[in-house]
Amino acid sequence: MQQKENTRKWNVEASIAAKNTVNPIRQIVDKMNYKPNPNKPTIPLSIGDPCVYGNLKISDYVDQLLIENIKSGKFNGYPPSTGYEFARAAVAEYVQTETSKLNSKDIIIASGASGAIELAFSAILNPGDNILIPKPGFSLYECTSKSKGFGIKYYNLQSQNNFQVDLEHLKSLIDDKTKAILVNNPSNPCGIVYTKQHLQDILAVAEEYCIPIIADEIYADITFGDNVYYPMASLTETVPVLSIGGIAKRFVVPGWRLGWVAIHDRQNILTNAKIPDAIISLSQLILGSNSLIQSVLPQILDKNNKIVQDFCNDLAKTLETHSKLTIDMLSKAHGLKPVPSSGTMYQMIEIDVNAFEDIADDNEFVGKLLSEQSVFLLQGSVFQIPNFFRVVFCAPVDKLTEAYERIIEFCQIHKKK
Amino acid sequence: MQQKENTRKWNVEASIAAKNTVNPIRQIVDKMNYKPNPNKPTIPLSIGDPCVYGNLKISDYVDQLLIENIKSGKFNGYPPSTGYEFARAAVAEYVQTETSKLNSKDIIIASGASGAIELAFSAILNPGDNILIPKPGFSLYECTSKSKGFGIKYYNLQSQNNFQVDLEHLKSLIDDKTKAILVNNPSNPCGIVYTKQHLQDILAVAEEYCIPIIADEIYADITFGDNVYYPMASLTETVPVLSIGGIAKRFVVPGWRLGWVAIHDRQNILTNAKIPDAIISLSQLILGSNSLIQSVLPQILDKNNKIVQDFCNDLAKTLETHSKLTIDMLSKAHGLKPVPSSGTMYQMIEIDVNAFEDIADDNEFVGKLLSEQSVFLLQGSVFQIPNFFRVVFCAPVDKLTEAYERIIEFCQIHKKK
Ligand SMILES: Cc1ncc(COP(=O)(O)O)c(C=O)c1O
Ligand SMILES: Cc1ncc(COP(=O)(O)O)c(C=O)c1O
Repeated sequence: MQQKENTRKWNVEASIAAKNTVNPIRQIVDKMNYKPNPNKPTIPLSIGDPCVYGNLKISDYVDQLLIENIKSGKFNGYPPSTGYEFARAAVAEYVQTETSKLNSKDIIIASGASGAIELAFSAILNPGDNILIPKPGFSLYECTSKSKGFGIKYYNLQSQNNFQVDLEHLKSLIDDKTKAILVNNPSNPCGIVYTKQHLQDILAVAEEYCIPIIADEIYADITFGDNVYYPMASLTETVPVLSIGGIAKRFVVPGWRLGWVAIHDRQNILTNAKIPDAIISLSQLILGSNSLIQSVLPQILDKNNKIVQDFCNDLAKTLETHSKLTIDMLSKAHGLKPVPSSGTMYQMIEIDVNAFEDIADDNEFVGKLLSEQSVFLLQGSVFQIPNFFRVVFCAPVDKLTEAYERIIEFCQIHKKK
Repeated sequence: MQQKENTRKWNVEASIAAKNTVNPIRQIVDKMNYKPNPNKPTIPLSIGDPCVYGNLKISDYVDQLLIENIKSGKFNGYPPSTGYEFARAAVAEYVQTETSKLNSKDIIIASGASGAIELAFSAILNPGDNILIPKPGFSLYECTSKSKGFGIKYYNLQSQNNFQVDLEHLKSLIDDKTKAILVNNPSNPCGIVYTKQHLQDILAVAEEYCIPIIADEIYADITFGDNVYYPMASLTETVPVLSIGGIAKRFVVPGWRLGWVAIHDRQNILTNAKIPDAIISLSQLILGSNSLIQSVLPQILDKNNKIVQDFCNDLAKTLETHSKLTIDMLSKAHGLKPVPSSGTMYQMIEIDVNAFEDIADDNEFVGKLLSEQSVFLLQGSVFQIPNFFRVVFCAPVDKLTEAYERIIEFCQIHKKK
């Protein structure tokens, strides 16, 4: 008996995939030994969840639709693994472009944009292949790839140049095993909306090297001022684009876990290679997203629905105000330089470590700020860009103001003498 | 330009994982060339979705809880990837046993039992390892394993012996690469609830060979008559059990996509091997299940909640009536022999092909039945057991009666002369 309970005898070991599934954010943040200052209330500006403060709220209208559909009792059964036909059609209508028309069969509904990323990556990459991902960039691309044994190569975004892609660097990374270029626009963590010209330049590289694009366009609708969001698929006749989207951010409901892959494939390049079938097959493993949430897509994605449109416009306007406040206040902080956001809910700030007495790097900046000022930020290192930090500016204006005042004070205190 | 559009130049190919993700049901059913008889209304008894006919309904009480929580606006943000702490605690309370107590950290909430199966398999198997799965059995075990490159070995369930496990066969399959024995009780497609003794016999094999159990217990609460469901974890002090569960069947809400892995590990065998951490890491890839559905778990999984308990008991009673009807009527059909169900919503029926004039196998039985009588069944072949078929007996009694009359007529017509 005693022998049986010996773990050595049990052939149990965590899988390689699990060991390789590492969230770089957790890896870095968990190692930090800083605690908030007990004398100051904490202000978290670190998590990309617009619901944290309760100031940004889902439209009552959307809630009401959901409640009606619950009461109908019609949406409790299994949807097809790719999503209800009507839900796929609604997404198709919503994401198609003037030039790249879609219909329901081009859409696969997934468990969040995260689930959509997993489907898209898994459909076109084998272990040993590689995908080009942006640096700085959203950590899930790395986490998902490493979990599945897909190689990653980081292409540089130029912080001095509005985080535009370093196209020469991008080209230099492409090899025989490169199966996709991931472009995240508007971008987390950069908060940047790329111009039409820049997107065309990226597409030209994809076209030259015959590499499909995976476009993470989950922040599609959140742009500020004159900045226009162009779906990548609208700018190419040839390059196949798997566009990732979802309702998490636009409707302030990340917990609802609904995203999609939209297959733009005007030359049938993906279709000939059976990529749509591949995504469909993979969708059978977990059977996609919640049926009730799917049931409201036709109304909430209807571009002619004024209530929803107004809600989304208001959300973008609110975030724009927050963005301006962020840039205005933090530009004044000693040693900090924002790269002004043009969309999303994120602002990247460069830290001039030489301007400070006792701050070696972004980890130390973020750590000491937390222990002295109780403000939570994420250091650039977790996005592969040291000596930056990311602010999530969803919090209400008074909280943001208070947080930024504390950051300004912190920078003043630690200023090089 | 023309050249660029040549797919050969585009380095695009569906991944091996996607190609290996094959649902055996679709593979077999899609090949069948039979169409329903246009003169008879169709009666589908093939899909394991209790919502198809609208006769089995979710409790209004559950809907009401969900609606309240939607209105509260509190459950739209990201839950932790493992689920809300309170939701995990509710599942722990619900699935723990007298002898194997659990708390929230032992539970990982997943996107359906399907998502939970993916997490459990992926946490303990590497490509090249193998898992023992029942034959006949639920096709997702095969589909998930093949998708991820995990080997599968089928152990026989004995149709002559209430689909009990052939223990000698089970033992004979175990090798160095065997990482888990999957036990599905109560079982799909067999509809059988195993006795305490039989479960102990299976556990003895697991203990002798030091192989953990993955127990798919999603039909836990649906048993008939004197048959008692024993959680596997309640019957062992040593063998680690990853128990898979969910709300899909018990609450008639498969579209809601909420399941879980419960980690029973009384000797810390899994914990020492870091399996809980492995499952948690993997849960970060898609961030689990819908927040709103998670929010109602404390109430609906409360064993002292009489409304819910009554609902679940009524559901089991209804299904028991349907089961009796199924067995009574189909026992009378020429050439058919049911292996009486003791739980779930499934009934397996053996076809004596020698008793028929022109029916070579289960595929032909099911196909001809469809084209003559417009009744949909699933042939045993899709569950790896030829010359059986599975009935899903969720439909209302009048539909079931009509379907069974047609089956009886069909058997009479095709009787060997
Ligand atoms: C760029 C980007 N893509 C995808 C996601 C994941 O979205 P979802 O919550 O729908 O899985 C996020 C979430 O923060 C994101 O920032
Ligand atoms: C034995 C078994 N396990 C798991 C599942 C999947 O359940 P879910 O819908 O929660 O993913 C099913 C569904 O039919 C099943 O029969």
